[in-house]
Amino acid sequence: MITLDEALARVIAHAQLLRSSTVPLPEALDRVLAEYVVSDVDSPPHDKAMVDGFAVIAADLAGGEATLRIVDEVTAGSLPRCAVERGTTSRIMTGAPLPEGADAVVMVEYSNSASEGAVTLVDADVAPGRHITRRGAVMQRGAVVLSPGTQLRHAQIGLLAEVGKCDVAVIPPPRVAVLATGNELVPYDQFPGAGKLRNSNGPMLCSAVRRAGGVPLDLGIAADDRAVLVGRVREGLETDVLLLSGGVSAGVLDLVPGVLQEMGVREIFHKVALKPGKPLWFGVHEGAVDTGADSSGKPPTLVFGLPGNPVSSLVTFELIVRPAMSVLTGHGPQGLARVTAVLASDFAQRGERDAFYPAKVIENDGERLAEPIAWQGSADLRNLAGADGLIFFPAGDRTHAAGSEVTVLLF
Amino acid sequence: MITLDEALARVIAHAQLLRSSTVPLPEALDRVLAEYVVSDVDSPPHDKAMVDGFAVIAADLAGGEATLRIVDEVTAGSLPRCAVERGTTSRIMTGAPLPEGADAVVMVEYSNSASEGAVTLVDADVAPGRHITRRGAVMQRGAVVLSPGTQLRHAQIGLLAEVGKCDVAVIPPPRVAVLATGNELVPYDQFPGAGKLRNSNGPMLCSAVRRAGGVPLDLGIAADDRAVLVGRVREGLETDVLLLSGGVSAGVLDLVPGVLQEMGVREIFHKVALKPGKPLWFGVHEGAVDTGADSSGKPPTLVFGLPGNPVSSLVTFELIVRPAMSVLTGHGPQGLARVTAVLASDFAQRGERDAFYPAKVIENDGERLAEPIAWQGSADLRNLAGADGLIFFPAGDRTHAAGSEVTVLLF
Repeated sequence: MITLDEALARVIAHAQLLRSSTVPLPEALDRVLAEYVVSDVDSPPHDKAMVDGFAVIAADLAGGEATLRIVDEVTAGSLPRCAVERGTTSRIMTGAPLPEGADAVVMVEYSNSASEGAVTLVDADVAPGRHITRRGAVMQRGAVVLSPGTQLRHAQIGLLAEVGKCDVAVIPPPRVAVLATGNELVPYDQFPGAGKLRNSNGPMLCSAVRRAGGVPLDLGIAADDRAVLVGRVREGLETDVLLLSGGVSAGVLDLVPGVLQEMGVREIFHKVALKPGKPLWFGVHEGAVDTGADSSGKPPTLVFGLPGNPVSSLVTFELIVRPAMSVLTGHGPQGLARVTAVLASDFAQRGERDAFYPAKVIENDGERLAEPIAWQGSADLRNLAGADGLIFFPAGDRTHAAGSEVTVLLF
Repeated sequence: MITLDEALARVIAHAQLLRSSTVPLPEALDRVLAEYVVSDVDSPPHDKAMVDGFAVIAADLAGGEATLRIVDEVTAGSLPRCAVERGTTSRIMTGAPLPEGADAVVMVEYSNSASEGAVTLVDADVAPGRHITRRGAVMQRGAVVLSPGTQLRHAQIGLLAEVGKCDVAVIPPPRVAVLATGNELVPYDQFPGAGKLRNSNGPMLCSAVRRAGGVPLDLGIAADDRAVLVGRVREGLETDVLLLSGGVSAGVLDLVPGVLQEMGVREIFHKVALKPGKPLWFGVHEGAVDTGADSSGKPPTLVFGLPGNPVSSLVTFELIVRPAMSVLTGHGPQGLARVTAVLASDFAQRGERDAFYPAKVIENDGERLAEPIAWQGSADLRNLAGADGLIFFPAGDRTHAAGSEVTVLLF
């Protein structure tokens, strides 16, 4: 049985960057850029006033004060109608183009009330260039402003708009198919008869996929039946990632590994020294699926057989699937945020598997406390829903004392 | 001029929780729950095997070993066909219902190969209840499983599915209208003529709204014209939040505050001791807008006049608008994450306004360094796009030395 680190390394080794696609600018948010972007404009597009005030020739203010004749008013979006000459000034607004001749702006706060077409300016601190940004000072036409690999947050979207980039090549979000397996499952909109339960893993994993930046495809429930499973898996292999939950233990109906291999999914590993989550299965499917759709050049589909218990399913998603999705989209293997916390009560860790235990995290007077939740095993979604993260307890028999430092992965 | 803290407090005081609405389960992700949810099932729904193995009467294994006749096989999703009696056992799979009579499960690993309808079990550690979870141990029918105010992450979505909650009352995401103003602006899909620039604030703010969990409504550009502005503002007042950018300085064309007050938006403050972002305007609009739509009982629309410069616009969004949106949706006033970092180079802070300066944040050998970026003023979206956060420098004249600790707000 391999360790968690080894499992993660093998998954990452098979995760290939998705092929880029071109999307309208607003849809590029939170994606990774897949092209060089060049500006087609200077920024600012002209010598620009940085304040509201008066465009002047600095030499006119050499004495710290001058009364100047007002010859024009320039607002943002308009053009100067005449130049500024010695003894004259143009009223100018923030962002407006500087008139020819002028070499500085005096803030409106330093003017006496302008009247009769003239204004008295009192400012001892006027030198050429004062309160002006020169054309192209921020960005010159032809300059590369963003490079492939850049994560596009809102500031970058603003910059792309400024340079007129309407369609942007980005790495798209991964499409992730989710298939719950098991004869015991009924859809969540039905009441479960004797021996049955509702499919909670499907909606939970679809939500986890969305939170991790992917686009979920809910394939519903497959009963433990080879033919049904084959059909759904075929659909799932058209996507970038296929998540199955259930059917990977050693029970008589645990058909998943067999069906996947039969369909050309190459097993990379089965079982990880992880608690909960030991039965995890991982494989890759390369090449086209026989459905007539064009899959040429498509990176391999990553196929995960997650344990059927909700908590195991969630833990393996967070620890293994989420970092893999992150690599597919060019973000590097990002998992949950790791923080240090103080253990709130004793915890007895036993066995040769790394353990991740659901916990409440409480910030108290600058101290971060992690309190393991009282739970009823790995089907206990109710108590898991009260947890804020997972405490990591390394493999080995040891009682961790209250007050000791632990690592917590935050949801 | 009020301080940033005072401005934020006044905004939060006017931010009311949005009215709840009912959505299909998958859309409830990342929302705040607005009702009590009660389980209509026991979990587990039956006494349940926790491992693959054999359902037994513990007393049969009192000697640590027994050979038992196999009378049935129970898989998850099926029902036992007969009871277990002394001297007999049923093969059982994880999750399957325990047959009547049985009171423990022996793991398959402790069985000798079953044949001829019998199996020899060797396990000295069998007591009643071993490897069984009792019906209702996790959750009982009629129990409240989630309460109003709970944030619905993926585990909660799974739990809601388990209890058959198909339609969920939640606080919806805020609808946020974004209107860029200014004669100098052209849409980003056009080439700007002399004196013009593309509207970068509109797409940037719409993206910021999405990242903050809102639904943006892009109202495009309004020229500095009273009639145009009135029409667009009327549309914007139908939403929960209206963001205008530009038009709030002291320039001759800065019409925004006047138009807003004329339309019944009550000014709460104008100007904040903040750098960049001083011209920030905030007001509220209560009651219906004259458009025929039903707005009865709608909480007031929060109206922000953000400065037109992209960097000022972004800083005021992050510091003031984002926490307000967060209050509207029941999350409390969450802003950007604050971390401590080491200043990488000297920084001279001047003036009576709290300053937020764009910075690159570099993690280096466990140390977090914040390096102020070289920028060209508050229109410099290009350099802002290279920043990871904002360093906070409190008001007052002081040179902060390289190596000193600073607070950074992370994007």
